[in-house]
Amino acid sequence: MITRAAVLSTGDELTTGRIADTNAQWLADKLFELGVDLVTVLTVGDYPERLEWAWQQALAQADLVVSTGGIGPTADDLTTETIARVLGRRLVTDEPSADRIRRFFASRGVEMPQNNLKQALVPEGYVLVPNALGTAPGYRVEADGKHVVVLPGVPREMKPMVEEHVLPWLRGQRGGEVYLAHTFQTFGISESGLDELVAGAVDPAEGRVSFRASFPEVSVRVVVHGAPDAAARRLEAVAARMRERLGEFCYGEGATSMEEVVGRALRARGWKVAVAESCTGGLVGHRLTAIPGSSAYFVGGALAYANTAKMELLGVRRETLQTHGAVSEECAAEMAAGARTRLGADVAVSTTGIAGPDGGTPEKPVGLVCFGLATPDGVRSATHHLWGTRDWVKLLASQVALDMVRRTTLGLPLWDPSRFRRR
Amino acid sequence: MITRAAVLSTGDELTTGRIADTNAQWLADKLFELGVDLVTVLTVGDYPERLEWAWQQALAQADLVVSTGGIGPTADDLTTETIARVLGRRLVTDEPSADRIRRFFASRGVEMPQNNLKQALVPEGYVLVPNALGTAPGYRVEADGKHVVVLPGVPREMKPMVEEHVLPWLRGQRGGEVYLAHTFQTFGISESGLDELVAGAVDPAEGRVSFRASFPEVSVRVVVHGAPDAAARRLEAVAARMRERLGEFCYGEGATSMEEVVGRALRARGWKVAVAESCTGGLVGHRLTAIPGSSAYFVGGALAYANTAKMELLGVRRETLQTHGAVSEECAAEMAAGARTRLGADVAVSTTGIAGPDGGTPEKPVGLVCFGLATPDGVRSATHHLWGTRDWVKLLASQVALDMVRRTTLGLPLWDPSRFRRR
Repeated sequence: MITRAAVLSTGDELTTGRIADTNAQWLADKLFELGVDLVTVLTVGDYPERLEWAWQQALAQADLVVSTGGIGPTADDLTTETIARVLGRRLVTDEPSADRIRRFFASRGVEMPQNNLKQALVPEGYVLVPNALGTAPGYRVEADGKHVVVLPGVPREMKPMVEEHVLPWLRGQRGGEVYLAHTFQTFGISESGLDELVAGAVDPAEGRVSFRASFPEVSVRVVVHGAPDAAARRLEAVAARMRERLGEFCYGEGATSMEEVVGRALRARGWKVAVAESCTGGLVGHRLTAIPGSSAYFVGGALAYANTAKMELLGVRRETLQTHGAVSEECAAEMAAGARTRLGADVAVSTTGIAGPDGGTPEKPVGLVCFGLATPDGVRSATHHLWGTRDWVKLLASQVALDMVRRTTLGLPLWDPSRFRRR
Repeated sequence: MITRAAVLSTGDELTTGRIADTNAQWLADKLFELGVDLVTVLTVGDYPERLEWAWQQALAQADLVVSTGGIGPTADDLTTETIARVLGRRLVTDEPSADRIRRFFASRGVEMPQNNLKQALVPEGYVLVPNALGTAPGYRVEADGKHVVVLPGVPREMKPMVEEHVLPWLRGQRGGEVYLAHTFQTFGISESGLDELVAGAVDPAEGRVSFRASFPEVSVRVVVHGAPDAAARRLEAVAARMRERLGEFCYGEGATSMEEVVGRALRARGWKVAVAESCTGGLVGHRLTAIPGSSAYFVGGALAYANTAKMELLGVRRETLQTHGAVSEECAAEMAAGARTRLGADVAVSTTGIAGPDGGTPEKPVGLVCFGLATPDGVRSATHHLWGTRDWVKLLASQVALDMVRRTTLGLPLWDPSRFRRR
């Protein structure tokens, strides 16, 4: 049975500080959930002798080695040839992958650089791990009771490969005891506030509670461990208690996002939504349209950055801008009302604020954002003092706007900013 | 002289996926700037035998080992006792540090848990690395020509300790030589295409060329090494050759982004830009407004997702939608023209396409995106066959749209999609 794992991260971009190894963290989290003990993470640059050393060490320490990086088409992609040498395996071409690469270039009518076929070379005895989003396939190999999983370094390719192909296989290898986890997504409360809120809800012998802040949200995870049936029952009981404690701060459970939850709420109510964005600059619309099928409930909106755009696209009155300024609840209310009426939506949300780093004044400092919400019941507005760099202000403002849509669509009271405490 | 380093990251929070190892990236970057070759990063949890293994490996691979984590007061902080065992050194108390810890608790009027004094234990022969922001000091030790630097894991404490105490010492150890790097940002060509394009431009003895794909862009970095003056001259010569090879595929140099380059181009020409987004849903506007001061050139735009929004906000004709459909060059052209005219912009760009995963047809498959570009010279349109998941199509479409604005603002020819090759 697989109990000990090593992660091997390859690439000069890691050893020269160009990027952080987020792949290793993501894989560590997945292994942890399966109860596999991650003994070490080894990172090396693209050098044959370093790769060989790392592979030997990883195979000596663990019965599963998961590798990311070094399987692209270029000369510094050395992972597969290193594995072949370390395991004493011949390299063979996976013909379907080679065909797929050739077809890819043919379909675009461009000549294929020959080095691309290198990506179809795999060690004998491999099981393919298909890569739906790139030309470099991954693979699994078993040798002397050790398992090796080889994946590309690009996170967007690697993650679905693990979710769809590696984890199902690994669960089968794990047998007997399982770790089961349930995650709650929260917004509007800090990590320490959550810690207080759930204190004592779960006995450490029953399960472990952990928090992970991923701005602007905090997710709460509870993990239980045991035989499958007993663990499932325990997880259910523990999750029910957590759910009660978290209350309205929890906007979703499992692997979901605010935009997905908003979409589900709109669908359930049969509502259509429009946006009127100034300081968020399109981020609210971008997040809403990240969800497949969002055209069923997203009509569109206005990016009303300049005052002329606020007037032309949303019918904001010149007088309102002159009297109260663009960053005002009055302007936000007219923006939301204009978007709702002009686009024939049921609900519309607006943002207008000072994203910074410049443009703040003592009265209207960086981080001040006004929101408008127009529904069949009328128009409301709110002001929040957000903080951080420009991208934080935009992201947090988009989150507040989406949460306003979620709450009003579900018939919940609007968010109370006094309960949102900065860490 | 110190030439080879290893970084050793300690802590269960790393091997269970709770946090990413940003310390290692930060240290890797600092070492790279000093020309120290980072041979490996080793990460292990808080287990005595794993720590001992990692220290032995690190010392065997490198002449400098920089360690973070595992020097706090609790029982699972094992770094110092491991080093003492591996190096065969006695542990002694650094009395000033012990006093500082005692005073820290006394000044707060709380009784000191005795385990806190553990933090003042250091291996014989140490040089203290003071920690201004925490109770656990760091230290340096030299043994058999190898150097060991031990630091806390909290980034806020570790980083100033490195900046103020470790780097000045390390510079002294390094003597003359430096590594210098230059980065080129490219779009519109694949990693393998770039590899061919620059093949032979740089002799491996002169410098090292590496690629980093960060969808949808690929950056190319060249690194040279030597005495400061000679290295600077060599970098200049090598960069000039690379620049010539990369040509129009290079949209920027150094740490920049497409949206920043677009903003600079618009400012330089004194142009204002508007957007008309359907399938990108706000992403083009979000990216443009990610740049501080973008209100100087970004007027706003329309998120014209539903047909009603295309007509209402942009004046797209019903006849156009009925005859050609929403995903058509005709519609894209009217969207761009409408945004430019209504918002009084100099240039406007539009997107309309099938982001997927649903909604594709044999004639208009997922990934088909039409673009419009309106300038004082008239309106042009283009169709591109993009690919990947919904978020890829959106991101790539936003990149194409921004590159169209960049090229037209700079007076360059528009992008030729046949040259854009997937990896």
